[in-house]
Amino acid sequence: MPVYMDHSATTALSEHALREMLPYFREEYGNPSAIYSLGQTAKNVLEKSRQRIAKFIGALPTEVFFTSGGTESDNWAIRGVCQRRRDKGRHIISTAMEHNAVLRTLQQMEEDGFEVTYLLPDHLGRISPEQLEEAIRPDTVLISVMMANNVVGTVLNIKELAKVAKRHRVLFHTDAVQAVGHIPVNAHELGVDLLSLSAHKFNGPKGVGALYCRIPNPLPPLLTGGGQEKGMRSGTENIPGIVGMAAALEDAVSSLQDNTEYLKRLQDRMISGVLEIPGVRLTGDPENRLPGFCSFVVEGIPHSVYVVNEMNERGFCISSGSACSAASREASHVLLALGYEKHEAGASIRITLGTDNTEQDVEDALAALRASVQKARTESPSMAF
Amino acid sequence: MPVYMDHSATTALSEHALREMLPYFREEYGNPSAIYSLGQTAKNVLEKSRQRIAKFIGALPTEVFFTSGGTESDNWAIRGVCQRRRDKGRHIISTAMEHNAVLRTLQQMEEDGFEVTYLLPDHLGRISPEQLEEAIRPDTVLISVMMANNVVGTVLNIKELAKVAKRHRVLFHTDAVQAVGHIPVNAHELGVDLLSLSAHKFNGPKGVGALYCRIPNPLPPLLTGGGQEKGMRSGTENIPGIVGMAAALEDAVSSLQDNTEYLKRLQDRMISGVLEIPGVRLTGDPENRLPGFCSFVVEGIPHSVYVVNEMNERGFCISSGSACSAASREASHVLLALGYEKHEAGASIRITLGTDNTEQDVEDALAALRASVQKARTESPSMAF
Repeated sequence: MPVYMDHSATTALSEHALREMLPYFREEYGNPSAIYSLGQTAKNVLEKSRQRIAKFIGALPTEVFFTSGGTESDNWAIRGVCQRRRDKGRHIISTAMEHNAVLRTLQQMEEDGFEVTYLLPDHLGRISPEQLEEAIRPDTVLISVMMANNVVGTVLNIKELAKVAKRHRVLFHTDAVQAVGHIPVNAHELGVDLLSLSAHKFNGPKGVGALYCRIPNPLPPLLTGGGQEKGMRSGTENIPGIVGMAAALEDAVSSLQDNTEYLKRLQDRMISGVLEIPGVRLTGDPENRLPGFCSFVVEGIPHSVYVVNEMNERGFCISSGSACSAASREASHVLLALGYEKHEAGASIRITLGTDNTEQDVEDALAALRASVQKARTESPSMAF
Repeated sequence: MPVYMDHSATTALSEHALREMLPYFREEYGNPSAIYSLGQTAKNVLEKSRQRIAKFIGALPTEVFFTSGGTESDNWAIRGVCQRRRDKGRHIISTAMEHNAVLRTLQQMEEDGFEVTYLLPDHLGRISPEQLEEAIRPDTVLISVMMANNVVGTVLNIKELAKVAKRHRVLFHTDAVQAVGHIPVNAHELGVDLLSLSAHKFNGPKGVGALYCRIPNPLPPLLTGGGQEKGMRSGTENIPGIVGMAAALEDAVSSLQDNTEYLKRLQDRMISGVLEIPGVRLTGDPENRLPGFCSFVVEGIPHSVYVVNEMNERGFCISSGSACSAASREASHVLLALGYEKHEAGASIRITLGTDNTEQDVEDALAALRASVQKARTESPSMAF
C-alpha cells in the first residue's frame, strides 16, 4: 500500500463509520417514508443522525438538510438564494479562490443575469472584513466565502466576515467542506446562514453531505419530488451514508484537539523539511492553516505533475492542487488569485497529512520528495532551477 | 423480522453488491480525479462500472452518467432539456400519473414559463401513441412518460411512444426507476433520448442512480463544479455506490427471466387470493404489469393506512401507494388520474413482491390481509362495505 498524503482530496472511510453503516444496507433497509415498523426504524435513525450532526456543527437539527455531497450543497445554497432573492437584487460577492463547486455555479448565475464581485485574497489567501464591506452594494443578495482553502490550506476568518454580512442584512454562505471535522466549526457562533459540508473529507462515506441552513424562509429546493427533508430535498434518503457521516463526524469532532496537536507536529516537521529543498516556497497562511496541510510552489519544474508522478513511483500519494483539476494541466486558479505567476501556479504541490500518517512516513516522504524534485528538475533542464 | 412486501419502495442491498462495494470504502478509497495509482484504481473501477451498467441497459458507456438517484436523474433530464431548448419552444408533454420527481419538477417548469400538457391515462394506466401524437405542438420540446407506474404497476409501451416523439423530433425522457432490473430495458431499442434509473430499486445501494443520455449536444449540468462525468455532473464520484449499482444490476438482469417467472407465479396467487376478499378490486393493467406488483382498491375503509397498519401489526410490510406519500394521507394522484373516485384513491394498497418472498409468505399475507381488511372495516362502521 502506498503512503496516502492527500487527505484533503478524500479520506478512507473509518472503521467505526463502516461498522455503524453495515446494518442499514441489508437488515434495516426500510424506506424512511414508509409507515410500517421497518420504515420507522429508518426514519428514527435518520433523525438521530441529524441530531448528532447538528450537535457537532453547532446547529439545530431542524437546520440540517442531507444532500449527496459538498458540490450539491454549494449548488443548492447559491442557486437557491439567487432564485429566492432575484427580485431583491442581483449582486453576489465571493472570492477568486473558491472551489469550482462555487465558482462554476457563480458563473452560471452570471449567465442568468447576476453580477458577481470576486474578491482578491492577499498573497496568503486572506480576505479582510474591510475588503468585504467595501464590495457590498444595495443590491447584494448573497456572500459566499470558503472557510478553508483547498489548495493552500488557509483558514479564513468567517466569523468576522459573517458579521459584516449580517450588519448589511446580506445572506452569508460558507463552503466549509475542508473545515468540518478538521477545525472547530460552530455554525451559530460563526453567524453564517448557509454552510456546506461533505462526509468523505472527514473519513465518512463518499456521496453524502449536508447543508446547514438557518434562513427563516425555506430555501427553494434544488431537487424536487417526493418531498423528503421537509420538502427541501427530494429523493429517498441515503440512510447508510447519513449514518456513516454522523459516526465519522462524531469521531472527528471528539478527537479534534488530539488530532490537531498530532497533525500540527507532523505538519511542522514536513514544512520545515520541504523548505530545506532549494527553490521551494510555502503557499498559504503560515499561521492560520488547516492542521496537516502542507502546500508549496516548486521552482524549476515545468509542471507539478512531474513531482506528483515521481512521488507516486516512490509510493506516496500527493497532489498538485485540488484533486478535481489534477488531471488537467491547468495552473491553479487559486494560486493565480493569490498573485503567483502562471509558471508558479502550475508548479504547486499539496501534501495533506492525516492521523494515519506517522512521523516515519513524514521522514520517508521528505527523502522521496528531495529525490522527486531533483529528478523533475533534471528531466526538464531548460527550466532548471 | 417482518415479511417485506414493499419492494417497489426500496430493496435490501444484495450480498453480492455489498461484497463488491466493501474494498472501496477503506482500501481502494482514492479520488478518481487524482493521478497517483490509488486514484487511477478508482478511476478504472468507475469506468468498468459504467461499462457494466451500459451493457445491461442497452447503452454505450459514453451515454451513462452517474447521479445521486432517480430523483436527481429526473430533475436533471427535465431541467436540463428545458434550459437547453427554451428558445426553441416552451411546451412539454407528460402524464398525470408520473412520480412526483417528474411532476413537481414540471410544476417548477410551469412557474418558469413552460406550458405542460398532462396526458390522462386510461383506467388501466395506459397512454396511447395516438393520444401522444395529438398533443404534440410545434413548440413541444420535451416528452416525459414513465416506463412503469409505481402505484399500479402498469408497464407502458415506451417504444411506441418514443417512435412518435422521434417522428416529430421531440426529445423523449422516460423515468424507468421502477422498470430497470425488473423488466427488459434496452435504451437503444426503446429509442428514448433520456432514461432515469435508481440503484436501490433493484437491490443496489441507496443514494446512487444514473441518467442515460444520448442527446448529441450534451445536457447542461444540474450540478456544476469540479467537472466530473465529463463536465456533466460535478461532485466526487460515489465509487462504492456506483460499484454496488453495477453488481446489483448485473444480478438483476442476468436472473431476469427466472425472477420474472417466479414473481409472476407468486403474483398470480396473491392477486387471485386478494380478489376473493369482497369489495377489493385490482388496479392497473392486468396484462402489462411489473412482475410481483399487486395493487388494489379496498372498499369500505376510510383510508388505506388502516390496512397498512393492521398488516404491520401482523408482521407484513405493505404500502398504501408510493412510499413518498405514505405518511401523508392524501389520495393517490395516480389513482385519481386513472379515474378513480377520491375515496377509492385514498383506499389503495400496494403489495410488491420480491424474490426473497416465498409461496408460504404469500399464503400468510393473504390470511393477514383478510383479517386486516375486516378489522379496518369494523373499526370504521360508518363506511362499512
